[in-house]
Amino acid sequence: MIKLFEKDPYAPIQYVYDVKDILHHSKSRFQEIMVISNPYFGNMLILDGVVQITERDEFFYHEMLVHPLMHSHPSPENIVVIGGGDGGAVREVLKHETVKRVYFIEIDEEVIETSKKFFPEVASGIGDSRVEIKCMDGAEFVKNRKGDIDVIIVDSTDIIGFAKSLFTVEFFKHVKDCLTDEGMFVTLSESLHFHKEMVVEVQESMRLIFPIVDLYTANLATYAGNWWTFSASSKRHPIREIRRPCKIQTKIYSDEIHVQSFVPPGFYKKLMNKELKW
Amino acid sequence: MIKLFEKDPYAPIQYVYDVKDILHHSKSRFQEIMVISNPYFGNMLILDGVVQITERDEFFYHEMLVHPLMHSHPSPENIVVIGGGDGGAVREVLKHETVKRVYFIEIDEEVIETSKKFFPEVASGIGDSRVEIKCMDGAEFVKNRKGDIDVIIVDSTDIIGFAKSLFTVEFFKHVKDCLTDEGMFVTLSESLHFHKEMVVEVQESMRLIFPIVDLYTANLATYAGNWWTFSASSKRHPIREIRRPCKIQTKIYSDEIHVQSFVPPGFYKKLMNKELKW
Repeated sequence: MIKLFEKDPYAPIQYVYDVKDILHHSKSRFQEIMVISNPYFGNMLILDGVVQITERDEFFYHEMLVHPLMHSHPSPENIVVIGGGDGGAVREVLKHETVKRVYFIEIDEEVIETSKKFFPEVASGIGDSRVEIKCMDGAEFVKNRKGDIDVIIVDSTDIIGFAKSLFTVEFFKHVKDCLTDEGMFVTLSESLHFHKEMVVEVQESMRLIFPIVDLYTANLATYAGNWWTFSASSKRHPIREIRRPCKIQTKIYSDEIHVQSFVPPGFYKKLMNKELKW
Repeated sequence: MIKLFEKDPYAPIQYVYDVKDILHHSKSRFQEIMVISNPYFGNMLILDGVVQITERDEFFYHEMLVHPLMHSHPSPENIVVIGGGDGGAVREVLKHETVKRVYFIEIDEEVIETSKKFFPEVASGIGDSRVEIKCMDGAEFVKNRKGDIDVIIVDSTDIIGFAKSLFTVEFFKHVKDCLTDEGMFVTLSESLHFHKEMVVEVQESMRLIFPIVDLYTANLATYAGNWWTFSASSKRHPIREIRRPCKIQTKIYSDEIHVQSFVPPGFYKKLMNKELKW
């Protein structure tokens, strides 16, 4: 059996996967792109040696990235998805009838093409008439847009390499300027087990810009540390409050999962005060 | 660098750890016992190739195994800990002032001795005067005890091999007979990501015996699948209700973590009806 040894410099455990087939292997302008098939997870997308999604359980990540904000916002119409070239976040956004336009900003066109070919179900929303694809840097896009976006979702690779520009205070400032007065923003912020310092850093940066900042988690089997965080901010409405109860088809997200996914206040306070010791 | 490849036949991801030193390697009557040191996790206890505890993060597992029940029971005095030869569960039990006696039932004396030597902080409660060590099969112990135990905690290895006898309906029946009318019982029940069927099986078996059965989870970085479950049952009191607010020193457990760790009712119903698809 061929093995894939994941290359994640920030993880103290290395994850190893059985490889049934190598379906695709290329190098784009930005990164190494690989698709393998695994007996348990099905097709898996790997960028620069790090697992991004698997056919079997991608919905955990995509639903939990997208739906908390989309159910907290009173009426999300204009959405920006930055990254997420596989199309999974876009697919989830399109489940909401309120949505009129999705600006899908992916820097690497080859990821989109690879996903269409090897993850057709994940990429299924990309051709929707509401979706406008722009192959460019998300940081550039938000710099030049003002005040008409309801929800911005960053679905990037880890906070290293070229994705770094999506985690700066400057970027968060531009994101805020893009949003309407009721606008909301979410981004991944790594694992509470292995990257607590990064979580705190993202939260602190967001707090410099947004009046409302919150943190929720999901359990993701194929991301190092698994106890994955999402950092969310908002200009007016608390994000942990549901404004539109869930009526869409989901596998893991629900009203009760929404509420329970946000870290409790005492825990949050200790995290931000660096009193959590592990 | 030497590497430890974890041997977990039920996990679709293999975890690999850097090995700084091999501190101990022996074969007891029951299993292969190894202690390694790792740059991130510190000392790690490995039984039959599977990581049991690490110095750095053992408290996640031990606190979440022990404290929900101990704070839900109105007055836990007589406690049985089955397995957990490292002593971590016993250490947590002893934090409760109500406790008068802990029956510590570990089948493999060599695990206790290894822990005393390489995990002194974890094993720190083993010598306490309230602790009575019995090196025997936990299934045998509960068979011959009647009606005077407040809380029974099973801290076994995975539900394979010789630990299997701690997950049968017959065992659960004996556990129930051991308990007082207010008695409670908890056991690990594997990962929601990778072993959903096992979780359901344990829950179903418990439901044949106990009037109240519940399920809570914790995020454990070094157990395959990470999204770890604990199956708990009770003869009278709902376990998700806190009867004695937390006044002990903990790192992760708190009143709010207690409440949030229990799976929400809708999710639980879907799980038990096998409607959760992944």
